[in-house]
Formats: sequence, structure tokens, C-alpha cells
Amino acid sequence: MFLLPKQSVNAHGNTFRLIKRLQNGIQKWYSLQQASTETNQKRRFDTYSQPLMKTPMPGPRSKELLKSLRQIQDVTAVQFFTDFQQSQGNYIVDVDGNRLLDIFCQIASLPLGYNHPDLIQALLNPDNASVIINRPALGVNPPVDFPTKLHETIIEVSPPELKNVTLMGCGSCSNENAYKMGFIWYMRKKRDGKPPTKEELESTLLNKVPGSPKLSILSFDGGFHGRTMGTLSTTHSKAVHKLDIPAFDWPTAPFPQLKYPLENFQKENQLEEERCLDKVKQLINEYENKGSPVAVIVVEPIQAEGGDNHASVAFFRQLRNIAKEVGAAFLVDEVQTGCAATGHMWAHESWELDDPPEMVTFSKKMQLGGIYHKDEMRVDESYRVFNTWLGDSSKLVLLEAIINCIKREKLIDLAKESGEVLQTGLKSLASKYPNIISRPRGMGTFCAIDFIDSKKRDEIIADLKNNGIMAGSCGALAMRLRPALIFEPYHANYFIDAFDSVLSKHK
Amino acid sequence: MFLLPKQSVNAHGNTFRLIKRLQNGIQKWYSLQQASTETNQKRRFDTYSQPLMKTPMPGPRSKELLKSLRQIQDVTAVQFFTDFQQSQGNYIVDVDGNRLLDIFCQIASLPLGYNHPDLIQALLNPDNASVIINRPALGVNPPVDFPTKLHETIIEVSPPELKNVTLMGCGSCSNENAYKMGFIWYMRKKRDGKPPTKEELESTLLNKVPGSPKLSILSFDGGFHGRTMGTLSTTHSKAVHKLDIPAFDWPTAPFPQLKYPLENFQKENQLEEERCLDKVKQLINEYENKGSPVAVIVVEPIQAEGGDNHASVAFFRQLRNIAKEVGAAFLVDEVQTGCAATGHMWAHESWELDDPPEMVTFSKKMQLGGIYHKDEMRVDESYRVFNTWLGDSSKLVLLEAIINCIKREKLIDLAKESGEVLQTGLKSLASKYPNIISRPRGMGTFCAIDFIDSKKRDEIIADLKNNGIMAGSCGALAMRLRPALIFEPYHANYFIDAFDSVLSKHK
Repeated sequence: MFLLPKQSVNAHGNTFRLIKRLQNGIQKWYSLQQASTETNQKRRFDTYSQPLMKTPMPGPRSKELLKSLRQIQDVTAVQFFTDFQQSQGNYIVDVDGNRLLDIFCQIASLPLGYNHPDLIQALLNPDNASVIINRPALGVNPPVDFPTKLHETIIEVSPPELKNVTLMGCGSCSNENAYKMGFIWYMRKKRDGKPPTKEELESTLLNKVPGSPKLSILSFDGGFHGRTMGTLSTTHSKAVHKLDIPAFDWPTAPFPQLKYPLENFQKENQLEEERCLDKVKQLINEYENKGSPVAVIVVEPIQAEGGDNHASVAFFRQLRNIAKEVGAAFLVDEVQTGCAATGHMWAHESWELDDPPEMVTFSKKMQLGGIYHKDEMRVDESYRVFNTWLGDSSKLVLLEAIINCIKREKLIDLAKESGEVLQTGLKSLASKYPNIISRPRGMGTFCAIDFIDSKKRDEIIADLKNNGIMAGSCGALAMRLRPALIFEPYHANYFIDAFDSVLSKHK
Repeated sequence: MFLLPKQSVNAHGNTFRLIKRLQNGIQKWYSLQQASTETNQKRRFDTYSQPLMKTPMPGPRSKELLKSLRQIQDVTAVQFFTDFQQSQGNYIVDVDGNRLLDIFCQIASLPLGYNHPDLIQALLNPDNASVIINRPALGVNPPVDFPTKLHETIIEVSPPELKNVTLMGCGSCSNENAYKMGFIWYMRKKRDGKPPTKEELESTLLNKVPGSPKLSILSFDGGFHGRTMGTLSTTHSKAVHKLDIPAFDWPTAPFPQLKYPLENFQKENQLEEERCLDKVKQLINEYENKGSPVAVIVVEPIQAEGGDNHASVAFFRQLRNIAKEVGAAFLVDEVQTGCAATGHMWAHESWELDDPPEMVTFSKKMQLGGIYHKDEMRVDESYRVFNTWLGDSSKLVLLEAIINCIKREKLIDLAKESGEVLQTGLKSLASKYPNIISRPRGMGTFCAIDFIDSKKRDEIIADLKNNGIMAGSCGALAMRLRPALIFEPYHANYFIDAFDSVLSKHK
């Protein structure tokens, strides 16, 4: 523990002593990092060369800490306690000294692995300190360099033709506010330039029509868009997420259930996608007729929490056109798929749309949330899409370093390269163990494979953990792979070998 | 600009050169802070002694930056661009070099003023770096010291008898999830130990009863609890926040409209509060009868965004009892009132309830959001009240320093002391300018005063800004005071004098 003097807040006389102690602390930490790097020149981004297991998972110290945390809050999802100082690159280290190759990465939210030098630099740069310790209300008193930072980072990597961005704190808030933006846009079109009526302004304060209109969001079965009550009404991945929470009566369309290998089921899969699109049109009519028209269609490029469900480029292109035809905003939720892991900065770039989505939401690897949107979606009236912080300047400091690193190190290409190794490996294992696993699928390193049942899936994920691999599940049957962007072919091969070894014991 | 070498990510050979540059940068920054402090020994927390205005507000450089930001996003609420490096203590400095006494403080979210030395220390402590740059998924892989940090910070300052805490990112998410917790608790009681039925689990995936039940939250006219769609259905402060957004049909009760000075209207105010409580009971019956029972009653100790509306201790005590009688959870929203400014760590402590609220939410000055709650509210099933990050470890680093400073410097007492000066001053000005201002009111430094109309209010707030005072508005007629916790009687007197001077020109 690096101890600081218990000084009074205005004791600036201690400043130089303090600096000296800080210097010593930083130097010590860096020396550790350097020493371990020098011994491992083979890998580009890691100091560790492989997993190292010391105890069964979770280990005794994790179990001890769990007791302490359980006094305060629900801990049923906690897997183990992490030593974030010792974790490095693609390896997560737990409090018991176990070191695991991490292909889950803080629920798909860790872009550059652990303790990346670029992030350390960004943190220790004194120019960044003031916006980290004085959290700005970005909609009221933004920092001097805020416009430049946005232009050079988030706008620089924006999806094609979407040059507006509204920041938020997290993925749920991003989607909630995208829905609001969609509703406001829809009603503005309907009002055709007229101001809202007195009746609208009065009725909305009491949650009544016409001010609080009946409008819908169309979402898909198996989709996940968040856990706040607007987004939760569009989330349909697991019952436990929704049970007991009141919901809006909004339409839920079926999402294509594709058969694999895709090349063997082209006709069936095409018919399945047509069936889903027909149902989308039918639901839009139905909700229009019952006085709750669809203002927004929301979809993930890959249904992530719902089980890594993919659909074809043709499906998404047709869906985009349906939205356009019926006058609904097309919202692509890239909270999990966004930020390079699919081999594209944004997964939906692969659709090559003629007309971009009205809105694209992001969070997770981007460190904060937000909505990219078209000019026409702008809400140029104060406080309609707004909150206290409107994002987080301290995360922009990290995001700037992340985006620079993605560009400099060509990490989008690396995701394609390592993804190729992963996908080839998963296909080969699916052939080798057809009674346990099936449907290998993926885009870049954003991969998944199904198990024969969820019990077997959970057993094998637990076995992998005890063999030094931290993986995650999604949907009813899938294991999902969400490595960091510094995941190399070397790690992909290591994982495939370890998975093979575990599977061989489950035959 | 402190330039960092454009090095490759594994160039640890540059480490020592980098440390040297960091040391120089940190040293330079500290020297500046120290030099300015030494010239002003009179004030405990400030380096600056008073405002210093150089241009009309907003100044030319702010206007220039506004153009750049307007290319990307709505800027209608932006007041000016802030130089966060030059801002210090109670003073915010803008990009044009204007220095204002800040009594709005990033929409009431800045606890220790600008660039507090304790926060600088927390940031530069190398032990804290790893959880700032590697954002943990706190529900899955919490850091080693997470239980201890929670026990020693958030739990240490918890409201009486509420020793559970669930963290969130912001105020809206805190209230959304408190509502969810309330619904889950309500249905668990109703189910009386039985597991959910197959029909419930299937219907909820489609947003249908019985799995997505019809349940209500009772809120108050003029209340503000957030902008996501669940909380927005309980927000009733301004139409513009709600217009065009679909809402749940939930009951809205009147909030007491007290007459001032309170000592002259005791009987009237008591009758007004009884009227409101009667209406609460009536609405609960009404919604019970229409099959949408009230699961949660939510209220702010002071309706902040809605215009700083106060009610008596007796009102809140009776409201708490009504919740208990009808089996609804009592949720106190302390997002704006919490964290010491009212002269209590939590404003509702002043009610001295016999039975604490089931839940208390916080955010703003606490830097991250969360829900304090009773044991019985715990949701001990995975992923029901959950999200990717479940708070933000980097904000816990700051919060630890904030809570230690509040205790060490006795900032709750200071809020009482400075609040006394503010409230006395506001009362005196209300007597002096009865044609412009009225209804001075407050708790600690959490104060407000009403204007004859909103036009006059907005004019005077703009004049104050040009005279070096950054204040904010709330509701239709009020100016709200939300200084930092390091606001001293000296600053209160300075503000009262400046306000007097501005008012004298508006007679």
C-alpha cells in the first residue's frame, strides 16, 4: 500500500514531499512492468506467456472475500476477485494468484486487455487530471478541449455518414435515449412544423395522451438492449431479466434461427429470414391499427446476450428498407458488437447500407455510452435528451488512447486475423466432437459455439476456468468468446488446444 | 500540452524517460497550485479570493468553441466552456479567463469544489491506477479491495439501518433499478415463497401479464426522478422533459404547496399537507381497484428540479406510514439532496423515522449512483438487478477521498454554518426586494428563492453571471443554490452582497 500523509487539505507545503513519494511509487510500479516484459519478447502485448493455475476456482481467498461482500449486496454472479494490478495483457490474475487467459474480458467491455501502457500514460498525463477529478456536466460546462476531443476520437471512428454524437453513461442509457430521440423525431414529423399544443404540454405531465403518446418500438425475440424499463421492454433474451417488471405493450418479432453450416442450408435460411421479415411487416400494421404505431425498429448486428444469433446481410438490408418505408427510425444497437472485435469498427458496416441507420448506439469497449445519429435526429431544444453528466470526460481520456492504439497497431486487422484462427479451430472441434458442440459461428474474434444442453455448457465453462481459460456463456446453449482487441493468433491457438483437451474429457 | 512519445505499446524501454517527463509535468502543475495558495492564506479551501470578470458571458472563445461543438451535437444548454485546470476551490474559470464563484457546481454534482488536493492525491496514487484504467465488471470480477472499500466508504456513511448497497452508474439508473427492486420484492411477497409459474416465465418474454404484471409507482407532481422511461413516468417537473415519450399509467399525487414564511401559515400548510396525503391514499385505492397496485412510493426530501419544494417532517413521516400500511416500498430519492449539503449526510435523516425507508437512492456528489436498501429488498438471484459495470471503481477511488475529507474537515457542520448565513441573507433580501423575490427557503446550503416571474428570474441569473456568480434555476420561478461542500460563510456573504447589488438595479 502506497501511503499518503494524513494532511489537511490546504497543506500545500507538503506538496514536494508528496511528489517525491508519488514518483517513487510510480517508478516502482513501472519497474515491475518492465522487468516482466523484458523476459517475454515473443508476444507483442503480453508480459505473461500462458495461464498459471494455483487453486481450484474460486480459490480460498476469493471465497473469503465473497463472505465480506455478501454482507452488503447480492454476489450470486461474482466469479472471483481480481488482482487488477497483477493482471496484464490478455491475462486476468485473481486474488489467489491464478492467472487465466481472459476471453470474456469484463463482459466484453475491455478493449486493450489489462494495464495497457497507453492507458497508463493517459492516466498519468497531468493534462488529463482535471477532467478526471472534476467530473464535468458536459451539457452545461464542457471542458475547453471537448469539441476537439470529440472530433478527433468518437467522430473520427464514426459509422459511415453519422457525424452527430450524443454521449451517455452506459449502454442502457444510450438505448433509452435513442428511443426518446426516435419518439421525438417521429412526433415532430407528425406535427409537421407546428408547436406542441397546450393540451399536449399539460397531459404529458400526468403521463396521459396526447402529450405522452402511444408509440411503439419494434424489437426481436432473443434481443437484448438493456435493463432500464424502456430498454427492458425491448429485451427478450431471458425471462429472469424481465420477470415481475411492468413492460410497455410493444411488438416483438421473431429473429431468424439459422441452420449451420450456412452453406448447406441456404434455401431454408433464406425462407426463415423471409418469414421473420413478413412478421415484422405484419406487426407494424397490427400496431398501427391498434393506435400505437412503430416509431423505431431496434436490432443488434449479432444478438449477443441472446445467444450470438446471426442473420444475413440481405436480412438487415431488407429490415432497414422496411423501417424507411413505414417511417420508423432504424436503430442499430452496437453496444456489444461495436469497437473493432468483429473485424469492423462497427459490425453493421459489413451490410454496406445505401442509407445509413438513423441511429447507432455504443458502450462497453468504448468505456462510455452514446448515440451516433443523422442530422435529422437532432433535438435542438434544451433538456429533452439530457442528463447531469451526459457521458464522462474521464472515459474520453481513456477512449482517446484506445482509438489511437486501435489505429496505430491495426487492431481491426488483428481481430480479423485472430478471428480466422478461432473460427477455423471451432469448426474443426465441432467436427471432432459433434455430440457435444455445434454451430460454430463468428465475425472476427466475436465468436460462439453451441453445446448439446446448458448443463454441459456450464460444466465445460467451469472446467475451462480450472484449466486457465476465462470464458462466458450467452443464450441457452452458447459459449461466447469476447477477447480483447490485443488477442493474437497465438492466444487463439492456445485456447483451441485447451478447449480440445477439456472436450476430450467430456466425450 | 504535455506531449507523450509516440511509442509502440510494448516499448517499455522508454519507461524511465516517460517517468521523467511525467515527474516534470506533475511538478509544474503542483508548483502553480502552491504559488497561488501561498498568496491567500485567509481562506481554508481556495487559492482565489474573489471573482474576476474579463468579458461578457459567454466570452468570445466560448462562442467560437460552441460553433465547433454544434457541428456534432445539441448545444442549447451549454453556458460556457470551462478551463478545468485553472478552476480551483469554489471558483470556476472559463476559457476566456473569467473566474466565477460557482454556486451551481456542475448541476449540484461537485462535492469538494475544483481540483481539491485530496482528489489529486487519490488520482496519482499508483495503487488506484489499475481500477481506473481497467474498468471492472463489478458484479462478476470485482477487485480485491472492493468489499473493504464499500464497507469503509459507502456503508460507513449509509443512512440509519440501511447496510445493503447496490451500485449503479447514474441517478436515473439508480431509480430505475430501485423501482425494479421494489417490483420484485412486491411480487415475491405476493407469491408467498412459491416459484414463478411457467406461464409467468413465458409471458414476460413478450411483455405480457402475468409475467410482466400491472404494477404502479406513486410519485408526486413536481417531482424529478430521472429521464429514462421508467423514471420519466415518475418525473413531473417540466413538460419538455416528457413530451412525446410514451409513459406508464401510474398515479401522480399533489405535492404540498407551502406558504411562506412558514411561521405565519402553520394551519394553512398543515391542511395543505393533509389534502395531499388524502389524495395519496385515494390514488392508492384507485390503482388497486383498477388492477395496477402501487408497489413503490417515491419522493424527494426536497423537490429539487421541480423548484425546491419543501414539506414538513410530519408530512414525510405520515407518507412513510401510508407506504407501510398498504404494503408499498418507501423509496427516498436523495440523488440531489444527498451527500452533506443539507447539513445532514442524507436529508431524510432529519425526519427521524421509526422505520427507515425500504430504499434510498443516490448519485451526483457521490460521483456514481446506487441504492441503499433494507435486507428484505435483496434480490439474491443472479442477473435480475444487474448490468455490465454495476457502478464504476474509478469513482469509488474519488468517493473514498471525498468521504474522508467530509469527515476530517467536518463539512456537514460547515454546510449548516454557511447555510445559516445564506438563509439569513436571503430572508433579509426578500424583505428588501418584496416586489422581485419571495419564499426564501433552504436546508444547509441547499437553498432557493422565488422570483416574480421566470423572465425576471432568468434575467437576474444572467446578470449574476456577468457579475461573477454562477447560479442555476429550478422549477418555474426559483433560483437554486448548490455550492460545493467547501463553501464557507465568507463565500455566502460575498454572494449575498453581489445578489443585493444586482437586485438593486432591477427595482
